[in-house]
Amino acid sequence: MSYAFGPHLIRSNQIFLFSKLSFAFVNLKPVLPGHVLVAPFRVVPRFAELTYEEICDLFSCTQTIGKVIEREYHATSLTIAMQDGPEAGQTVPHCHVHLIPRKAGDYANNDDIYKDIEKSSKVDNEERPPRSLEEMAREAEFLRQFFKDSK
Amino acid sequence: MSYAFGPHLIRSNQIFLFSKLSFAFVNLKPVLPGHVLVAPFRVVPRFAELTYEEICDLFSCTQTIGKVIEREYHATSLTIAMQDGPEAGQTVPHCHVHLIPRKAGDYANNDDIYKDIEKSSKVDNEERPPRSLEEMAREAEFLRQFFKDSK
Repeated sequence: MSYAFGPHLIRSNQIFLFSKLSFAFVNLKPVLPGHVLVAPFRVVPRFAELTYEEICDLFSCTQTIGKVIEREYHATSLTIAMQDGPEAGQTVPHCHVHLIPRKAGDYANNDDIYKDIEKSSKVDNEERPPRSLEEMAREAEFLRQFFKDSK
Repeated sequence: MSYAFGPHLIRSNQIFLFSKLSFAFVNLKPVLPGHVLVAPFRVVPRFAELTYEEICDLFSCTQTIGKVIEREYHATSLTIAMQDGPEAGQTVPHCHVHLIPRKAGDYANNDDIYKDIEKSSKVDNEERPPRSLEEMAREAEFLRQFFKDSK
């Protein structure tokens, strides 16, 4: 089974958390280990279109996942970002949160990470090859154990 | 009256929205016009420490404010970012959301904005002079009219 992420389909073996209104999945081109995405099921481009219940669910999931990935990827901080609209760097027209474990020295220039977030979303970005489906499925399976309560 | 933002104090005339659990205020060194901050009243450094109610309130306010600043600053998108911990670029140890109206061409390189977000948080950043308290109060007063329902 697959889930819509804008015009793309995310296979269920890339998804590691389902909540009532949101889902979280591993990344084709993570900018750092543990870079995951959290999105509402409902395909809406902009944050402004989310209901109050969707907002609560999306960011409550983001918090839950953040605690786990920070610990499991041996990080000490988290970059949490939403590129809300094309002029903010959004490339997939489906509202979503980037969640990235951070640690000292992971980027020589701390904010270069945002350039890579934008590049990572572009299907035509050839700078880094996409990961294999098998590698992504393995990471999702690893993460899934921490979210057993989810659907 | 002043409100704690980590170790700093934010004067009430810089605040334009109060909700049950959060407040929003104008920025000493905005990276673009309309760059505002939203924070829970409770001084906690990390997102992980927020209660479910605080998360709902914080991001519901962020959505409400985002709609207004995008319209009022003639923008078409929003950068929404939380530097959650020092290794993610957080300089004030009080969990907060950066909310920035974006439009085409505002940055030649779209993600250079994040470098400026980090710099804008640093008290010792001398690259841009801080705005005057009067200028900040005027902007907060302008914004306050759109949030009359808030406390």
